[in-house]
Amino acid sequence: MNIDINLDKYKNLRRNLSRELINLNPIQRGGILPKESKKTVYEYWDGYSVCDFCYGRLDEITSPPIKEFLEDLSKFLNMDYTRPTHGAREGKFIVMHAICKEGDYVVLDKNAHYTSYVSAERARLNVAEVGYEEEYPTYKINLEGYKEVIDNLEDKGKNVGLILLTHVDGEYGNLNDAKKVGKIAKDKGIPFLLNCAYTVGRMPVNGKEVKADFIVASGHKSMAASGPCGVLAFNEEFADKITKTSERYPLKEIEMLGCTSRGLPILTLMSSFPYVVERVKKWNEEIKKTRYVVDELEKVGFKQLGIKPKEHDLIKFETPILDEIAKKDKRRGFFFYDELKKRGIGGIRAGVTKEIKMSVYGLEWEQVEYVVNSIKEIVEKYNK
Amino acid sequence: MNIDINLDKYKNLRRNLSRELINLNPIQRGGILPKESKKTVYEYWDGYSVCDFCYGRLDEITSPPIKEFLEDLSKFLNMDYTRPTHGAREGKFIVMHAICKEGDYVVLDKNAHYTSYVSAERARLNVAEVGYEEEYPTYKINLEGYKEVIDNLEDKGKNVGLILLTHVDGEYGNLNDAKKVGKIAKDKGIPFLLNCAYTVGRMPVNGKEVKADFIVASGHKSMAASGPCGVLAFNEEFADKITKTSERYPLKEIEMLGCTSRGLPILTLMSSFPYVVERVKKWNEEIKKTRYVVDELEKVGFKQLGIKPKEHDLIKFETPILDEIAKKDKRRGFFFYDELKKRGIGGIRAGVTKEIKMSVYGLEWEQVEYVVNSIKEIVEKYNK
Ligand SMILES: Cc1ncc(COP(=O)(O)O)c(C=O)c1O
Ligand SMILES: Cc1ncc(COP(=O)(O)O)c(C=O)c1O
Repeated sequence: MNIDINLDKYKNLRRNLSRELINLNPIQRGGILPKESKKTVYEYWDGYSVCDFCYGRLDEITSPPIKEFLEDLSKFLNMDYTRPTHGAREGKFIVMHAICKEGDYVVLDKNAHYTSYVSAERARLNVAEVGYEEEYPTYKINLEGYKEVIDNLEDKGKNVGLILLTHVDGEYGNLNDAKKVGKIAKDKGIPFLLNCAYTVGRMPVNGKEVKADFIVASGHKSMAASGPCGVLAFNEEFADKITKTSERYPLKEIEMLGCTSRGLPILTLMSSFPYVVERVKKWNEEIKKTRYVVDELEKVGFKQLGIKPKEHDLIKFETPILDEIAKKDKRRGFFFYDELKKRGIGGIRAGVTKEIKMSVYGLEWEQVEYVVNSIKEIVEKYNK
Repeated sequence: MNIDINLDKYKNLRRNLSRELINLNPIQRGGILPKESKKTVYEYWDGYSVCDFCYGRLDEITSPPIKEFLEDLSKFLNMDYTRPTHGAREGKFIVMHAICKEGDYVVLDKNAHYTSYVSAERARLNVAEVGYEEEYPTYKINLEGYKEVIDNLEDKGKNVGLILLTHVDGEYGNLNDAKKVGKIAKDKGIPFLLNCAYTVGRMPVNGKEVKADFIVASGHKSMAASGPCGVLAFNEEFADKITKTSERYPLKEIEMLGCTSRGLPILTLMSSFPYVVERVKKWNEEIKKTRYVVDELEKVGFKQLGIKPKEHDLIKFETPILDEIAKKDKRRGFFFYDELKKRGIGGIRAGVTKEIKMSVYGLEWEQVEYVVNSIKEIVEKYNK
């Protein structure tokens, strides 16, 4: 076979988004590796390196200390058991596939991440949505609405297999009071999954306190780990179903296909863990930074969407002022991206000016001020 | 919440299997990163770094050139389409889940990897095995047996949803003539999946030539990539089913849960690709090394299991001679591990002496000779 492939494009793969930029992309701020984990990378970058001392199950490896790490994660989340996954979505699919029957309903909030819908679709389940207490501008979920949606389904003879709540959603960065939904779930006797892709690793999450049966988290999104990896924590009651092993290979957990995160990412998750445990304690400071950004940028015509005041670092702004400038600028919407880039700031989607998403999570106060001042400067420069 | 966790164990995570050792573990020899990919690691180790310029689908990202990479992989494998996965097993599950109906049969070879069985179990399918032409010592699969097994199932009114062949198995390193099974599959009109976890990235594989409908490969195992990642290639006929998109999110492929390998491993897979394309051309040289090892070690009482002469680098030896020595040595089975370690050689399971698995894939000839001489020396030293 003669294959005609130009291989030059794979030489020197550089990240075009310069690492020197201040990156405001909310999905990326929680996944930046601390120095400690960069050292781990050198040790474990080769293929199956994590398997050096494996006796058949990733989650039971003691060198490196994966087994203890999973136990520590259970403590950290106040849950009974934890397994590594490839990410939050894979954790959601595992839960749905393991505990629901085809055709069951998953009741979820209207701000649920697309991966919650797609997981349900892959597991051949139906979804029913719990809507807003208020649409524009807060898009606050009506948590009491879970009751009604469930009752309606049950009245129609439908089986609700799972209640899913997005702890903080990826659109508005709204924090939901998980305890309320946990209580409803317990009252109804329906399993409750809390999607913590945007919370675990950023802010404290206590599974038992909110009565979660399952918690999924995202290593690359919020736990300072390389992608892809994540965490699925669950309680005793569901352990049998989640960790059911193969008939033929009694050591191998079926839903994990034996082993999930067999490589580098889980090592970075582990070596970042001490750093993550510490940073979670400083969550209040992050909220202060976020509110400062909102206060300052609302002064120049931005309008924060979602619940006020902010309780999470993801900020969504309506930015009519940018939109107006774009109409007059020959670069159109790209002027904003351009001007930010000149100032060493990246991560805001290029060309978009009606609404923007950003986060200053983990930046130093000076950097936060620099970002705020740069944006103000750009708006003031062009809005004349 | 007051969490009592000793975090010290996550500081300075070192790979205990020294990187200076010559590692003979067959599952690790094909996953060692070339220098080029180590550079890529620096660029992309942060969380969702691959998503800088994403417009909704991992497989369509052009910076870094993932889209082109997948097209190049399709050329490399002579298949129509390719998607990234987390590994070979996840690829197998995707295929089974997407194209089979619950209760269908997967017909597979008796040397199939445990992950093929577990994937079928997770997809709620049955398996039927094609047995050996000869058991001990070659464990050669009776490829013509696929016909009989399928006929028997069909006679009983069972539906065969998939034919799976392990191109090279992980127990004996036997290479199967995939074309034979491909032909049977075509004749019967049953989809055919070739598990190339141990072949793609090591030796040339031509999907159309062997009439494969699906090929799964393993990045961390055989394509010089960080774990976990892999590849699923498929033909036009099955594209609709494999790439079916969400009703609600028409961009998102259901079986991929939107995006699979969203992180560092796929970047190493890409940057290792030019190296992999080259090394595949030198497969004959690897076979020479392997046969040399077999010839030499059979002289001191090892006996190669599996098909002879070797057509793959994974060697399984029966080692009665080691077993005898172990009976007399106070370290018991561990003497061999110990003695190898003293000589800078690792990767052979500690304590095991009845049978061993090893590979010299990718080692320099001098290293291969050193390994052979070291083993001979150990055997001769203790076998007196
Ligand atoms: C709320 C929410 N859930 C889930 C995800 C997906 O996370 P993962 O990539 O770990 O599956 C995201 C990512 O953007 C998210 O914001
Ligand atoms: C034949 C075979 N198939 C599949 C696998 C699993 O590969 P992955 O980790 O990519 O799922 C292995 C790994 O040992 C193997 O030897």
